[in-house]
Order: sequence, then C-alpha cells, then structure tokens
Amino acid sequence: MTRPVAAMREAMASAEVGDDVYGEDPTVNALEARVAELFGHEAAMFTPSGSMANQICLQLLVPPGEELLCDADAHVVTYEIGAAAALGGISSRTWPAAGADLDPEAVAGMIRPAGYNAVPTRAIAVEQTHNLGGGGVIPLSTLRALRGVADDAGIGLHCDGARIWHAHVADGVPLATYGGLFDTLSVCLSKGLGAPVGSVVVSSRERIQRARVIRKRLGGGMRQAGILAAAGEYALSHHIERLADDHARAARLAEALAPYGIVDAARVVTNIVPLDLTKAPIDGPSLGAAARERGVLVSVVGPRRGRLVTHLDVDDAAIDRAAEVLTGILRGA
Amino acid sequence: MTRPVAAMREAMASAEVGDDVYGEDPTVNALEARVAELFGHEAAMFTPSGSMANQICLQLLVPPGEELLCDADAHVVTYEIGAAAALGGISSRTWPAAGADLDPEAVAGMIRPAGYNAVPTRAIAVEQTHNLGGGGVIPLSTLRALRGVADDAGIGLHCDGARIWHAHVADGVPLATYGGLFDTLSVCLSKGLGAPVGSVVVSSRERIQRARVIRKRLGGGMRQAGILAAAGEYALSHHIERLADDHARAARLAEALAPYGIVDAARVVTNIVPLDLTKAPIDGPSLGAAARERGVLVSVVGPRRGRLVTHLDVDDAAIDRAAEVLTGILRGA
Amino acid sequence: MTRPVAAMREAMASAEVGDDVYGEDPTVNALEARVAELFGHEAAMFTPSGSMANQICLQLLVPPGEELLCDADAHVVTYEIGAAAALGGISSRTWPAAGADLDPEAVAGMIRPAGYNAVPTRAIAVEQTHNLGGGGVIPLSTLRALRGVADDAGIGLHCDGARIWHAHVADGVPLATYGGLFDTLSVCLSKGLGAPVGSVVVSSRERIQRARVIRKRLGGGMRQAGILAAAGEYALSHHIERLADDHARAARLAEALAPYGIVDAARVVTNIVPLDLTKAPIDGPSLGAAARERGVLVSVVGPRRGRLVTHLDVDDAAIDRAAEVLTGILRGA
Amino acid sequence: MTRPVAAMREAMASAEVGDDVYGEDPTVNALEARVAELFGHEAAMFTPSGSMANQICLQLLVPPGEELLCDADAHVVTYEIGAAAALGGISSRTWPAAGADLDPEAVAGMIRPAGYNAVPTRAIAVEQTHNLGGGGVIPLSTLRALRGVADDAGIGLHCDGARIWHAHVADGVPLATYGGLFDTLSVCLSKGLGAPVGSVVVSSRERIQRARVIRKRLGGGMRQAGILAAAGEYALSHHIERLADDHARAARLAEALAPYGIVDAARVVTNIVPLDLTKAPIDGPSLGAAARERGVLVSVVGPRRGRLVTHLDVDDAAIDRAAEVLTGILRGA
Repeated sequence: MTRPVAAMREAMASAEVGDDVYGEDPTVNALEARVAELFGHEAAMFTPSGSMANQICLQLLVPPGEELLCDADAHVVTYEIGAAAALGGISSRTWPAAGADLDPEAVAGMIRPAGYNAVPTRAIAVEQTHNLGGGGVIPLSTLRALRGVADDAGIGLHCDGARIWHAHVADGVPLATYGGLFDTLSVCLSKGLGAPVGSVVVSSRERIQRARVIRKRLGGGMRQAGILAAAGEYALSHHIERLADDHARAARLAEALAPYGIVDAARVVTNIVPLDLTKAPIDGPSLGAAARERGVLVSVVGPRRGRLVTHLDVDDAAIDRAAEVLTGILRGA
Repeated sequence: MTRPVAAMREAMASAEVGDDVYGEDPTVNALEARVAELFGHEAAMFTPSGSMANQICLQLLVPPGEELLCDADAHVVTYEIGAAAALGGISSRTWPAAGADLDPEAVAGMIRPAGYNAVPTRAIAVEQTHNLGGGGVIPLSTLRALRGVADDAGIGLHCDGARIWHAHVADGVPLATYGGLFDTLSVCLSKGLGAPVGSVVVSSRERIQRARVIRKRLGGGMRQAGILAAAGEYALSHHIERLADDHARAARLAEALAPYGIVDAARVVTNIVPLDLTKAPIDGPSLGAAARERGVLVSVVGPRRGRLVTHLDVDDAAIDRAAEVLTGILRGA
Repeated sequence: MTRPVAAMREAMASAEVGDDVYGEDPTVNALEARVAELFGHEAAMFTPSGSMANQICLQLLVPPGEELLCDADAHVVTYEIGAAAALGGISSRTWPAAGADLDPEAVAGMIRPAGYNAVPTRAIAVEQTHNLGGGGVIPLSTLRALRGVADDAGIGLHCDGARIWHAHVADGVPLATYGGLFDTLSVCLSKGLGAPVGSVVVSSRERIQRARVIRKRLGGGMRQAGILAAAGEYALSHHIERLADDHARAARLAEALAPYGIVDAARVVTNIVPLDLTKAPIDGPSLGAAARERGVLVSVVGPRRGRLVTHLDVDDAAIDRAAEVLTGILRGA
Repeated sequence: MTRPVAAMREAMASAEVGDDVYGEDPTVNALEARVAELFGHEAAMFTPSGSMANQICLQLLVPPGEELLCDADAHVVTYEIGAAAALGGISSRTWPAAGADLDPEAVAGMIRPAGYNAVPTRAIAVEQTHNLGGGGVIPLSTLRALRGVADDAGIGLHCDGARIWHAHVADGVPLATYGGLFDTLSVCLSKGLGAPVGSVVVSSRERIQRARVIRKRLGGGMRQAGILAAAGEYALSHHIERLADDHARAARLAEALAPYGIVDAARVVTNIVPLDLTKAPIDGPSLGAAARERGVLVSVVGPRRGRLVTHLDVDDAAIDRAAEVLTGILRGA
C-alpha cells in the first residue's frame, strides 16, 4: 500500500479548511469542482472511501426492491460486504465473471423490464479497470455498446472507476470520454493515486444533491475534510501520468514470472499482475506466506489465485527483488 | 389458474378453526404437522403465499449483508420483487440460467468463505421443478452433489419447492428424500395442488420458531387460517398423484406443437410446456393475445418466450382445443 | 376470538374466484370497490392481515430514512414487530401514550421540516379506536385538527382503522367522514367484524397501484383470495351495526367490575374493557390464569394491566358469567 | 466551527501511517488503544464521523426489527437522517424531549419484554452532554439508575458521547466512570476537541470486531487514516482540560443575554447557550441572519429556538463581541 509523499503531506498541513458538512470547506469544494470537470459532469462529492462512493451511486440509480446487474466478481458485490442489499435494499443478479471481456449482448439479455410481475432492472455497473479481472481495461467500444444497451432499456449505468486512471493511461482514452458514458462514477484518490484517504462521486447536480443526504445517512459527512481533499488535489496534479511507470513495472514483473506458467503476460496491461496457480507447485496461501516472509506482498484471493500490484512505492529495484523472491519460491517448491 | 373443486370448498366450509396468530387453529396445526412429516422435518408453518414462504426461508438462512447464490432465472430473484434484498438485506449473486441443468461444481466455485474482507456466502437456493427452466426436474444426483457442496462450505441449502410435487411424481423420488437434502423448503398448496391460497415452510423446530416472528413482521399472521388450511389438507390427500395426468397432457400438447419448431418435446417432463419463439413466425405478445382471444392462456415471459401450463382444470378436450388453436395461429401467422 | 358464522361459511363456499395476483378475482374486486366507496376513496386493496395493511400504508407515505410520528402505544410500533423500520426503513418518534386523548398541538410541535440536516417528518399515524388506549374513540374534532396539522406541514396522515367500525357505531360518524380525513386507512374484516382473515388498504388510485407492488414484495399476493373476500363481504353487510350490542355488553361488564376499582366505567365506550390492576389484590398474569381456568379470556398486556373484549361470540349470558368469574377471583384474592 | 491549530497540523503532517483497512496503521491503532483505556473498555475503533460511530453502536446492540428507546430530541433520531431505521432496520420509540432531565422510571415503563407478540426493546440511548437539550449534563446518579433499569431488563445502554468531554470537565466525573456505565459509547474528536475529522466507538473486544465489519459495510473503512488519528491524539493530549474555558465563556455570554429573557443562565453548564425566543421581539431565522451579517454564528434549530456554542476558536474578545452584537439586535428589534 502506498504512503503519502512529503509534498502531499505538506499540502495537507497547509490546507485551508471549513466545515464540509455545511458545504463550507473551500479545499473540498475545489477538489469536487475539479473532478467533476475532469469527467465532464456537473457535480461531484468527496467520500471517505471507494465503497461508500460506489454505494451512494447505486442508491442514486436503483430504488429499494429493484435490480442491479453486474459482474459476479465486481467489487460492489464482493468487497463491500453486502452493502447494496443491506443498506440500499438493492437486488442483484450477476453475469459470469468476465473481467474486461464483458459481453454487452449477454448483459442486455438479462435486463428485466419495468412492470408489476418481476423485479425491474434499474442499473448496470461495470468496473474500470477490473480489479479481480486482473486490472484489464474494458475497451471503449464495449462501453459504448453497453451505454446503448442501457439507453435502449431506459436504465442507469454506473462505473466503479476506482482504477479508471489506469484505464485512461493504458488506453489513452480521455477521462471526459469515460465520464460521458456513465450516469454515475466513483473514482478513488487513494490506491494508485497515493492520497491517504478519499474517493469522489461524479454525476449530475441533482443526483449529487441527493447524494449529500445519502452520505450523511451513511455517516460519511466529515467536518474539516479539506485536510484530505488537499492530498487528493496533489494526487490529481502529480500522480496520474506517472501510472505509466507502474504499468511498465507490472509488465516487467509479468515477463519474469511467465516462464513459470502462472502469469499470462499478454493480459497484464495496467498495474495488476494476476497469478493463476492452478498448475503451480504451490498454492496461494503458501506462496503468500513465503513471499511475505521475504518482504514481497502477494494478495491472495483464492486457494490457487493471487495478484501482485505495482504502485508509487514500488521502484525498479523492488520489482527485481520481487521477481527474484517469487521465482526462487517457485523453483524451490 | 385452478379453482377449488366442490369437495375442497366443502372442506373449507366445515373446517374447525381457532386463532392461528396464537397457534390455536387446529386445522392449521394439523396441516403443518402433516407437511413436516411428509418431508421428514421437525416442523412447518403455513403462509399466505409462496413468495412469503421463500423469503422467510432465505431470512432464516442468510443474515442481512451476507450472501445467497441462485440461478439467474430463480423465482426468488425474479418474481419476488427484490424482497430478499429489500426486506432481508440479503445480497445475491447468480449463476447463468440453467434450469434443471445446474452444475454443482460451478456453484461451488462461486462460494466466498466467511471472513472480514468479502461478503460471505451463506446459502444456495434451488427451484424444484424450475419454473422459468421449463418445469425441468433437477436430478437427485445433482441435488446430492449440491448438498455436498453446501456441507463442505458450511452453508445452507434452500429448496423453492413450489412445484416439488411435480418432481416427486415425475421422477418417483419420495418427498422425504427431497426433504432430507435441504435445510429449508417452501412448498405450495395452490398452483398444481389446487388449493385457493397457501404455502408451507418446512424446517427444524428452532427455525420454524424464528419463522413465526418473521412471518408476523411480514404481515403473514392470519387469524382463522384453518379455512385455508382445510383446502390444503384436501389437496394433499387428493391432488398429488393426479399430477401424472397433467404431465401426460403437457407431453401430448408438446408433441402437437413440436413440428412447428417451438417446443423441444423431449424436455417437457412435468406440467410446463416452454415455448421458444425465436424462429417462430410470431412473437410472444402476439401469440399470447391471439390465443387468449380464442380461450387459450399462454403465459408470455419475454419477447420470444412463453409457456403453457396444464393443471386440474385442463382436461383432455382442453388439450386438443389448445393444440388446435395454437397450431392454427402458427400456420396463419 | 371470533369464529365465522354458518352463513359466512356458506358465502365462502360458494364464492366465485379468480387469480387475484393478476387482479382477476371478481369477489376480491367487488369487496375492494365496496370498501373504497364506504370510505369515499378511489381504490382499495385486500391484504392477509391488518399488520400488512398498516405497513403498506406506511411505506406508501414515508420513504426509507424519513420519519413517522405516532403514539408510543400504537399498534404500528408495538405489535408489528418493528416492521416499519425493518422492512420499510422508516424512522419513528412517538408521543407519550395518550390513547384517544391525543393533543394535535403537541404532535405539531414534534414535526421536523424537510431539509438537509435533520430527518424530515413525512407522516402521522393514529389508531381509531385505540387498542392499547382501551378502545377509546378519538373525537372527530381532534382528527380534524390533526388533519390541519398535517396539511400545514405538507405531510401524510394514516389511520390504523382496524376498529374504525366501532368508532363509527359509538360516535355515529359516517365512515366516509373518517375516510375524508386520511391519506391512507387500513380497516380490518376480522376481529370485530368476524371474518376469518383479511384487512383492506384504502387510498387513492395511484397509491393503491403502488400498494400492489409492495404487497407482492411482502408476500401478501394471494391466488383465489375470493374465498376470504366473500367472508369480508358478508361481514360488511351483517356485522357492522350489531357492534352496538358488543359495546352495550362491554359497558355492562365494566359496571359490574367498577366497584372493585379496576375499571373506569366512564371510559368504556366501545367493546374493550381495560383493566387497571395497580391497586388490585392480584396481578395481571395471575388474574389471566385464574380466569382462563374458568373459561374467561383476559388479555394480559402488562404486569398490572389487562383487558376484556366483547365480540360476536360473546352473548349476554357470557357477560354474566364473565362478571361472576372475575368478581369471584377478585373477592377471593 | 473549529479549525485545527498549527501544532495539530504538524502532528498530522508527520504521522506514521499504514493501511487501516487491514488494521495496520500504527497511529490509528495507538489512538484506539488510548481511547479504549480512557473509558476503561477493552477496545475502540476510529470512524469518519460521530453519526457513523453512533449508528455502528446501535447496530451492535439492536438487531433489525427490534427496538431502541431514546429522547425525542436525541441526535440519533434527529440528525442522522433516519439511519437507524434505514440502515439497521432498528425500530424506535421516544420519550418526550427531556435533555439532561431524563426520568429513569419513565424510561423503564416504556420497555417491552422479549417475546413473540410485541417488538422487544433491546437498548436505550442517552446523549451526554445533550445537544438539543442545551448542553445539559445528565447527573451521574441518573445514569446509574438508568444502568440499573437496563440491567433489570437485560438490555443494552448506549452513550452518544460526542460531548462527553464537556460532562467530564463540568461535573468532574472520570471518563472511566462514564465508560463503566455503558455497553457502547461513541466519542468525538472533532467539535469541542478540535480535530478536523473523526469519532471513536468504544466497547468490548467482541463488539469492536463486529463493528469493523459494520464500518466496512457503511463505507467507513479508510486507508491511511493515521493522518486523522494523529490529530485526534493531539486533541486528547491538549484539548480536554481547556474545555473549562469554553464553559466559563458560555456562562459569561449567558449572563449577558439573560436580562433579555432569552436565556436561563442557570442552565448553561457547558459550552452551549440555548436561546428560547418564545417571548423575544425577533424570531430565530431573523436573529440568525442579522447576527451572521455581523459575524456571530447563531445555530437556528426552530422558529423560536437557537443556540450559541463556544469553542477553541472563540476567545474572550469574541464573547464580548457576540454579547454586544446580540443585545444590539434584541434592543433594535
């Protein structure tokens, strides 16, 4: 995990603040305006986490007792602890885990129309880049087709854009182009961008107004949040374009591991290196433990499944070291 | 839809009743005891609908914010209007619509373990027979494998058994054998069995005790429900074995329609004749309207998808008439 | 508790039925139209219980996360097992238990306006007659003042009218006059009116349309509900005016018990005789047990609090017997 | 509202951080341990807001569909936007707004026992000091009596301790004494203590473990929250005892305003000066607007109700100025 750099800390220490619960924190207001503009939307709202940002978006698009469609491995139905159902009463059905390879026609076939008998589908959610899908980038053409599917059905389209910066850098698609395709987006200032805390909801002015009520109900209204927003501002100014370095390092690591049959290097296009240990001589938990002991963090997401992530705090030397440690473990297993 | 026969009405008119909200309706108590015994479980509870019976079972097995797995076409995530999420806070992920052909291994692969990071899977639901799956009967071997999957994961297994009587009659599997495989079942006295109103939840004594609180909260506590239970008793005594006639009639109807390419007669094994109009000269809503005008009820479940259902009130002559009407429409389209 | 009379059973046995889930049960439709007209509203909907009828009304008036005001002893926050919050996400605050003596000004003082900072009040609920308030009848002038309070605040007014027939008979206020004061009403065909099962939601056409979705989600959609509706029809035709007999009997019983200091006979105006055992030589549970042994049902609602209820099955002889049994116990205690 | 002082900003800028979602942020861990110890409890957990801290506590104590009792003016049913009901399914009844003068016997009388028929009461919440109750301090004897009431009923007791530091300073009651009376507490590092963001939940180890899951579901899991925790640490070390100054200044302001009949100076015991404008020549909104224009912030909480709050950024000169401005407005109105 990343840690805030010195200049970012300085930005926080000198941030002008006010009470954001009353909309009076100038640093938060500036950050929200900037993010809205980046994505070509009317308004934006700061939140303490990406999970809260996603859940607010889902509640904006889907009333209680109605339906969301998403990938079976989507963050919104995996790592957010049932929040859509538990807090928003949102019913969900999932298409088979497809990562970036989602099929808009198949999604279209799952949509149920409004009406009395069956639960109506009200929104589709995608994740760009897709975390459990190995950091894959959903092609712009796919997203455009999906937008068409949503429009035909008259339903909403949400982007869990925690890692949308990576898609932007990897595929060269402008952020505003992505923004134009979705009714709501959540984007993260932490993780890849390196701010300590914070995500942003992006949408229309009307929705963001409702979002402020939902955020308050969820307990996400913070007082002098400008301290955190200042870090976000810094991250937007300094940490987007440098993601290309993280991607290059991930590719290099993937190539080093490919000969061991646990990585498909051609699919490593951003900062995530997914590990498929199905045929490896060692399982996920064991590899994770052995690597951790030697200072390399493997995120274990299943018995034969893991992933490596490159970021701000991982330089070329760390990549060499990680490759050495992991290949050593694999050879010795 | 069926209508209660004269003898059933008589049973209702002469039913001994009490206040079931206080557990003092002798006819309800007798019905509950009988259904529990049929399925080899400790206890049972009467409900005003199959949807309520299912939802009570799901709430018994899955706490708010935890997860249910089921078929993408399951009744519990289709026709119950988002109740699992809206009323029980239950998160759901779905496997691709498979009807009776579900794959226990694939289901096993979707289960997420208990733990802090991801929403834990707490139950699997199946539907026997599967309504949108064309009345198909899940083989006993598949159910046994699924029970093993649930046991390995330490999670619950629910059967939406609205049509379980049809599976029992079609495959000859004893009801108690089915009962032994599930933690909770809902079974329906209406629909195929012909009672005017009512379903039954079947489970352990402890769960049924909790179920009574959930039922009261949902507004399903009825006063002199013995009137309805008397019809259920009659249905259990007189309308199970005769389902074989409905199945034979459905098969006959399927054979009549098969030449038109809209029915796979080999898959018609109970009382549902699913219509696939993908290559038909007429779409679902048009076929439904034309048939309705001539007295035949086609249930339209999509633009090119419908189904015919045989039951108590549909005799051989009605089958001949339905075949004639439908083939006439298809030829004329 | 009442049991259906022979003529009512006959009405059920000969009822014409259809599938009410599709709005095609003629007996249900006729009942709904009749009840709507009785209360001067556009539409009505049958439900399996009074709790479900109330909860549907509350969900119609109050969105999740907004607020209902009611009496601290109201049925909707007492005997409905937390349903408003658990199923509808409805926040509630209560005024001190006042039964029929509610103070519209005090209620007005509790209303919170719409806005960003505090939870907005969206509806007020009253209970006519008030069950835990001893069957007291809220005066028409109070209800009119409360309607004014609701109008000034732009919020809804619901009547839990499970016993509204008693108020109508006791105070001579036409049902349509009551109907005109409320946005939603729930009225009960069971209890005093003697039907075995069923309540009715009364409101505008638009709300009843939404109510059908909510009812289906709650599992209250029943198939051939006409069987039950036929009993309701019979009850409306034959059992309203006769409530005057129940009231007279309750008054007679109250007078017999008054000398023992456990009843304020002046406050017994409908069919409920509230018992205040604060200064009695015996507590509630003991009195209840002793009376039950001798065939008299005392509803115990607290350590020193109980009530007696007169109804269809309680004739003059039963009143004499109850008075004899209870005074005997009190003298012997 | 307060703004972080320079030394606090420095503490934030130099804070050691980790990923608190994985429990690996040392500064957060240290803060949590310190707060737990202050209140004599086993464990504690940082949250982004006091609302979230309160709601987590309520969910820990009250399952969905069960009941909470609290003051009609409690923060948890006023300013948290219906969260208890909407997110936790928690039913609530309220005693009449009593501020610090709550009556444990009256509260005891509202408790409903566990059981099948009525919603069981599972917890009582109090607010110390009571915000809408004018900053009043609930006497220790009252709290002890209430603890007895909760123990007798076998239910939980929660303290919304956003301002508990003020009670500690005003009444001299050790924090651990307060801690010993409650099953859960929420305490705030912002507001009076002057940290920019953050509250803390205090309870047993088992509850805090469950609290982490609830926090994650609500979207309150933050990454490098140590930045914020460092400010909290500073606040605990430097800003508790100085609250006595705020109290003295509030008393001085109250005395200046008392002659105008809008303040009962005897009731101003902490940092809140409640204004009762019932007999004033000006209403709340007008007073608020006029004062704001002249640089004095009056919090308007009703048409004839407001309050003034003293804090870190309000020195003696500011008090003189506020008195001058407000008395000027009152004289001129």
